[in-house]
Amino acid sequence: MIHNSTIDNQINHRSIRKFKDQKLNAEQLETLYTVFQHTATSMFMQNATLLHITDEAKRAKIRELCNQQYVGAEGDLFIFVVDLYRNQQIRQQLGKDDGRVHMSDLFMQGMDDTLLAWQNVANAVESMGLGYVPLGTINDHPLAMLDVLDLPQLTFPALGMQVGVPDQEPQLKPRLPLQFTTFENDYPRDFQVSDLADYDQLVTTYYDLRDSNRRIDSFTKQISGAKLDSHKIDRDQLPELLHQQGLCLDWQ
Amino acid sequence: MIHNSTIDNQINHRSIRKFKDQKLNAEQLETLYTVFQHTATSMFMQNATLLHITDEAKRAKIRELCNQQYVGAEGDLFIFVVDLYRNQQIRQQLGKDDGRVHMSDLFMQGMDDTLLAWQNVANAVESMGLGYVPLGTINDHPLAMLDVLDLPQLTFPALGMQVGVPDQEPQLKPRLPLQFTTFENDYPRDFQVSDLADYDQLVTTYYDLRDSNRRIDSFTKQISGAKLDSHKIDRDQLPELLHQQGLCLDWQ
Repeated sequence: MIHNSTIDNQINHRSIRKFKDQKLNAEQLETLYTVFQHTATSMFMQNATLLHITDEAKRAKIRELCNQQYVGAEGDLFIFVVDLYRNQQIRQQLGKDDGRVHMSDLFMQGMDDTLLAWQNVANAVESMGLGYVPLGTINDHPLAMLDVLDLPQLTFPALGMQVGVPDQEPQLKPRLPLQFTTFENDYPRDFQVSDLADYDQLVTTYYDLRDSNRRIDSFTKQISGAKLDSHKIDRDQLPELLHQQGLCLDWQ
Repeated sequence: MIHNSTIDNQINHRSIRKFKDQKLNAEQLETLYTVFQHTATSMFMQNATLLHITDEAKRAKIRELCNQQYVGAEGDLFIFVVDLYRNQQIRQQLGKDDGRVHMSDLFMQGMDDTLLAWQNVANAVESMGLGYVPLGTINDHPLAMLDVLDLPQLTFPALGMQVGVPDQEPQLKPRLPLQFTTFENDYPRDFQVSDLADYDQLVTTYYDLRDSNRRIDSFTKQISGAKLDSHKIDRDQLPELLHQQGLCLDWQ
C-alpha cells in the first residue's frame, strides 16, 4: 500500500455531519472553485456548474426538502449542476439550432463532468483539513427542489455537498472487501450472499453517529431491507424532471 | 489560493494520452483499489464495480470500439461500472424481490457512486506521479461494448480510464473563467456569448498534442460546431442499452 497525503485522506474518508459554526473564507472558496474548474471534462464541453448557496431563506428551504438538519446549517452548501444551458445559449446566439444538447448521451456526459468535479472538490476539501457530506437528498423531492433553486432549462442539480470545519470524529465505516467489487477481465456471476458473512459481522460493529446508541444493521440486512423495498417516493419524479428540463428528450 | 500537493496536482491536471511501456505493480493496484473502495457511496449501497482489463484480446477489442490508439495499449485499462447486480443478488438469495433496483433513482445513485470513485482513483493516480486519460469513448458503441465486456444484468460501464507513466507533457488546457461556471445563490440567465471573446482567444493558443501542428478552434466554435450538431451516432443507443440491462425500467 502506497501512502502520501492525498491517498491517506482518501482511505480515511468519513462523511462529516456536524460542523463548527464557521464559513469558508474567500481564499478557501477560490481554491475549491479553481479545482472544480480544472476537472477533466467530456469532449471539452465543460457541462458543469457550481452553485454556492449562502442565502439563509434558500438554505432553509433546501434543508427542509432534504430533511437533514445539517444541510445549509453550519458551514457552506454547494449544489453541483449538470449544465447544458450554457452550451445551448452559445449555439443559439451564434445562429445554430440546439443540435444534440437534448440527447441522453449529452446528459450522461454532463453527469460525468459534474460528478467528477464533485469528487475533485471533495478531495480538495479534505486536503485543506475540512470535511464534507454528500447530499443525495437534494433529489428526494426533485420537482420541489427545482423550484427552490430556480434553475433554467437544460440543467439538473445532480448532487449537493455540505462543507465545513469538522465538529465530530466518526468511525471509519467498513466497506465491501475488494474481492466483491474489483475484478480482472471478467465479471464473476457466481456471487454467493453467504460469502458476505464476515463482512456483515464487521458492519454491525460500526456505530453510526447519527444514532450513537445503537449499532447498524449488517450490509445484507440493509440491502434486503426497507430502503430497497418497493415503495413510491418523490425520487421517482427524476425522469419527469429531466424531460421537463429538456434533457434526454430522445428517451421516450 | 491555497496550495498543497493534492490541490497542486488538481489544478495542473492534464489528460495523458501517451504512456511508457510499463504496467502498474501490485502495490500501485492495491492502492488504487483501496481508494476506490473508500469513496463515499449513496445510502451505503456500494453500487460501483471496478474492472481491470489485462487480457490482450479484450484490450484490442475495446481499443477498436473506442477508436483511440492509446486505449488498452501502454499502461493499464480500467472500466468503472455502475453495479446494481450485486445488490439484486443479495435480495434474491435472501428471498426478497428486486425491490427498487430497476428504478431510475437507483441508477442515478449508482452513477454517483461510480463517477465519484472514478475521480477519487484519478486523484490517487496523479498523487503517485502517474497520469490518466478519461475514456468516455467506451460508450461510442454501447451495445457492442457490452458484448465485449460480457457484463451481467443491472450493470452499466459508465466511464473508462487509461493509467500509466506519462510519456508526454501536454500544455495546460485553458478552462472557462469562473464567472461563467460558479454562481452564488442564483443561476444568471443573461449569458452573452460575446463575453467569451477573451476566453475564445485564449483557447486558440492551446496546441493539442493529438495534432501538435495546429491550434484548436475557439471554445464557442467547438460548441457551435460539428460535435454538437445533430447527427445519428451509436451513442444514442444508451437508453436502449440501459433498458436491455434492466436499468431505469420505470422510465418509459
